[in-house]
Parts: sequence; structure tokens; C-alpha cells
Amino acid sequence: MISNSFLTKFKEVWAISHAMRLMGWDIETYMPPEGISYRAEEMATLNSMRRKKLLEIKADVEHLEPRDDMEAGIKRVLWREIRYIDSVPEEVDAEINKLSAESAVVWRDARVKNDFSSFKPYLDRMVELKVKVAQLLGYNDHPYSSLLDLYEEGLTVNEADGIFGSLLPDLKRVLQKVEAEGRFNSPSGLEDEPYPREIMEGVVNEIAYDVLRMPRGKFRIDSSPHPFTTGINRHDVRITVRYEGFDFKRALYSLIHESGHAIYELQMDESLEFTPLAQAPSFGVHESQSRLWENNIGRSKGFVGLIYQG
Amino acid sequence: MISNSFLTKFKEVWAISHAMRLMGWDIETYMPPEGISYRAEEMATLNSMRRKKLLEIKADVEHLEPRDDMEAGIKRVLWREIRYIDSVPEEVDAEINKLSAESAVVWRDARVKNDFSSFKPYLDRMVELKVKVAQLLGYNDHPYSSLLDLYEEGLTVNEADGIFGSLLPDLKRVLQKVEAEGRFNSPSGLEDEPYPREIMEGVVNEIAYDVLRMPRGKFRIDSSPHPFTTGINRHDVRITVRYEGFDFKRALYSLIHESGHAIYELQMDESLEFTPLAQAPSFGVHESQSRLWENNIGRSKGFVGLIYQG
Repeated sequence: MISNSFLTKFKEVWAISHAMRLMGWDIETYMPPEGISYRAEEMATLNSMRRKKLLEIKADVEHLEPRDDMEAGIKRVLWREIRYIDSVPEEVDAEINKLSAESAVVWRDARVKNDFSSFKPYLDRMVELKVKVAQLLGYNDHPYSSLLDLYEEGLTVNEADGIFGSLLPDLKRVLQKVEAEGRFNSPSGLEDEPYPREIMEGVVNEIAYDVLRMPRGKFRIDSSPHPFTTGINRHDVRITVRYEGFDFKRALYSLIHESGHAIYELQMDESLEFTPLAQAPSFGVHESQSRLWENNIGRSKGFVGLIYQG
Repeated sequence: MISNSFLTKFKEVWAISHAMRLMGWDIETYMPPEGISYRAEEMATLNSMRRKKLLEIKADVEHLEPRDDMEAGIKRVLWREIRYIDSVPEEVDAEINKLSAESAVVWRDARVKNDFSSFKPYLDRMVELKVKVAQLLGYNDHPYSSLLDLYEEGLTVNEADGIFGSLLPDLKRVLQKVEAEGRFNSPSGLEDEPYPREIMEGVVNEIAYDVLRMPRGKFRIDSSPHPFTTGINRHDVRITVRYEGFDFKRALYSLIHESGHAIYELQMDESLEFTPLAQAPSFGVHESQSRLWENNIGRSKGFVGLIYQG
């Protein structure tokens, strides 16, 4: 069974993780750009502490005999993390985190200037590092399987190829039919239509809070060059929207997409808080929720009619 | 001399402190209100880790034989912190931090509703806790001396009374003269004049960056019910301004006041970063800088003429 001392130690991991999520969110939203060098150093140090804490409970996790599903889940999730830490040396992990924080800022500038060459060395180095991680973690079929597992537990390249491969013939048939019948949407002219940012921010807020009924007390919307969702904790979930100044649909659907992610994060059960299970277990389910809201709901006639009349 | 292992351990304290400053800033600016319960728990856990880390280097600090002023300063500053941690048990410290985070949110609401009674129980408990801290730290002359020392190293109630006492007769004479000659500013009518927030935000930004020449890459301005300055690190200093919607001078002078604090924080020498000396040593000097900018510069004829013409 899980001891109190074990949970107390894990709570430190929990607190460090939450601090790091806020620091990551802040890098993308409000941090003054020159703050990045120290921020990267702060996060690398916290990550190193997090690793050490997890290794301190390695024996507890290894010898844990789960009494129920919850404890079995805790053991499984922690063991995955500990295996990663045991396999990937701190220097490699630290370089990935530092590079990731620094390259986010470089990418932001490069994006505005449409200048891939300034971002390329960061991307190249990241690929090198990830190949190294794949080798360190080991794999049976394909190097990427070991990295894929970090995002979607247990999924391998072969299985993913199988899933997408079986969809391909049907998708091709659908595409051919659409092309043959000329049923593409024709441009409405709205694609190039500029909007004043303040007005669009008002629309985004109204749709988020009055239509999607996002909870004001636990949710907020900021802006960033690439929209994302961060769940700091189950009472603090944040999304960002990108305002490009034209084609209001892009801001609108990034709002609905990210709200889908946020709805998933906000449904984390209270009993899981302070345990390693208080995090989304599947990127696949995460993305399915965002796309359900964006496409099946947000682009439906019913929804568009609702906000068009509103 | 200071060993590398000592500085490595201190770097963890440094990283935790920086994370906590960002978390504190976030509570006052952007955190969704219901996030506070977990945020308070996160910060209490980090503070507990910070305490443990500092106690781990207690022996190193105690036996440190400083080779120069810098090392002597590091020893002095750390020893003060360690003495506090040794004297004030974790439960007391944790309750102060938790209460402080929670009451900030209560205060924000109470302020808007002008409802002191909802804030009073938090204030009462804080006073009780601070009296306890004073007793735990010990004092010679007056209980408040031990608390005053936490803000202004070495200053006692007797000395502070001496300083303010010696100013009193002269201040009274100045006041009498002002009253006798009727030289109070008469209201200009601007005190009740409303302003649109967007316009005032533009003015605040223009004065901050174009007149005060605050560095865009290291400095940002947000808004909060009570203006404050947070130095996350020497490349990331943030102030807040309060926009009440009337009497633009109040927003303007809170900008200049907080910018004074920020200028002080931004001048932290690079050689001190990652050491315990990378924090403002004196609240008195801090406040003198903010008031110098607010009153001596900001209210001077030269400055007002400059922004009036601009």
C-alpha cells in the first residue's frame, strides 16, 4: 500500500511540476524576452530536483503492492517516469529543456520574420537529442516507438502505421468523391477580411463564457503566437488564442479547439489531485476532445447558427 | 572559501525562490481565482523544500571563512535566513504563507466591495501569527524589533522611533507654515475626471518606455488592484499599475513609483546572480528609490512640462 511518507515526497514532485507549468506558460505569454536565459536556468534546476526526488522514491515504487486500481495506476505512471530518468542522463534531459525554452523564443521571432534559418540550428540539435533519447530508452521495432510511447503510452510505430494505413483507402475514396462532385467550400471573402483586435477579443470572450460556458473562476484566455492549453491544476486551466488581424475564423476556431483541450483538463477528478494520476493520460484523447469541439461542434450548422444569430 | 557543492545546493534555493516569485506575481495578476487553493498548497510545499535546502547547508554556512566582502555578505545573508528557519517552525511559516496567498484573493474581493469584515478574520490571524514569530525570534527592546529586522536588517523600534522622533518637530513646523500660508494645492477638477482605460494604458506605456526609458526586453507592466513590483530575476522585472477609471494622476504616479522600484531591481549586479546577494538588501532603499522617482522627479516642473508638451 502507499505510505504517507511516499505521498509526502511525491507532493514535492507535484509542486515542482506545477511551478514549471506556470513558468512554461509565462514564457509563451508574458515573460519579458531577455528573461529567458535565467528562466531556462531556473527550469533546468527545478527539473534536476524533480528527477532526484523521483529517484528517491524509486524503491518505494518498485516494491509497491497495489491494493486497488488507483494504486496500480500510480505505480504504473511513476514507474514510466522513473524508467525515463534512469535511462536518460541528466545532461541530456537538461539540454533538451534548456534548448526547448530558448528555442521557443527564437521560434517566436523567426515566425514573425518568416525566417526559418535562424530556427534551424535549434531544430537540428533537438532532433539529434531526441535520437539519442530513443537509443537510450531502447526499442524493438522502430526508434520512434520509444519516443511515441512518451506521448501515447504503449503505442508503437507499427501499430500507428496499421491504424493510419487501414484508414487510407477509405479516406482516399472520400477525397475522390469530394473532388469529383466539386464540394469544396469556395472562399467566402472573409478569409482576407481584417478585424480590429479589441472587437475580436470581445467576441472570443463572449463565445468562451456565454456560449461554451467555460468556468470564469478556473479558466482564462491569453494570446500567443501558437495557441496552446496549460493545465496548471484542476482549478486553473489556461488557453491562448492567436489574433492575426484577418480571417476571424482562425481566432474563433483556435478558441474552440483549445477550449476542447481545457474541458478535458478541467474534468480531472478531485480524488486524483496530489497523485501522479492528476495529469492527462493520453495525447490522443486530448486531441480528440479539442477536435470534437472544433470540428464536430464548432463547425456544425447548429453552432454556427447559434453564434451568427447571437 | 565557498565550495562548488555549496553553490550547487544554493542554486536549488535560488530556483525555488524565483519560481515562487512568479507564482506570487501570477496570483495578483492573471491566476483564475479558484486556482488559489492549489496555488497556496504548491507554494507551501515549495517553501518547505526551500527551508530544508537551507538547513542542509547550515553547517557549510556556519563554518564558512569568508575570503572577501562578497563571501562575507553571502555568509551574513544566509545566516539570517537560516536563523529564521531554525527559530520559526515549519507549521507557523506554512500557515503564514498559505494565509497570505489566500487572503490576497479575499482582500481583492473585499476591496472592490468595500467590505472590511470579510477580510478582518484573515488580518486578525496574521497578526496573531506575526506576534508568535516575534516571540520565537526573540528581541531585546520591543517585540516588533524582531519583525522590523526582517525588512530592514538591524533596525530596531528604538532607532526607528529616534529617526522619526527627530523629524517630527521640523515636520510640524513645515506643516504649520503650509497651513498658515494656505499653500495646499487646490483641486484642479481633474480628480474626478474619468478616462477610458485603453487611452490611459497607452499613456502609461508611452511614459514608461519613451520617457522613463524602461528596457522593453527586461520589464513589463500589468495591472492589479494594488500596484507592486516583482523582480523575478535581473532580466525580468515586472510592475503593476492600477486603473481606477478616474483621476489619471493616480495611475500615472503609481507607474512612476513602481518604475523607481523596478530601476533599483534592474541594477542588480550580474556578479551577484545565483548567490544569496541577488536580492534587494534594504526595503528602506527600495522605497527611497520609488519615492525619488515619484515625487522628486515625477512631480517636478521639468518632468510635468516634458510629458505635458509631449
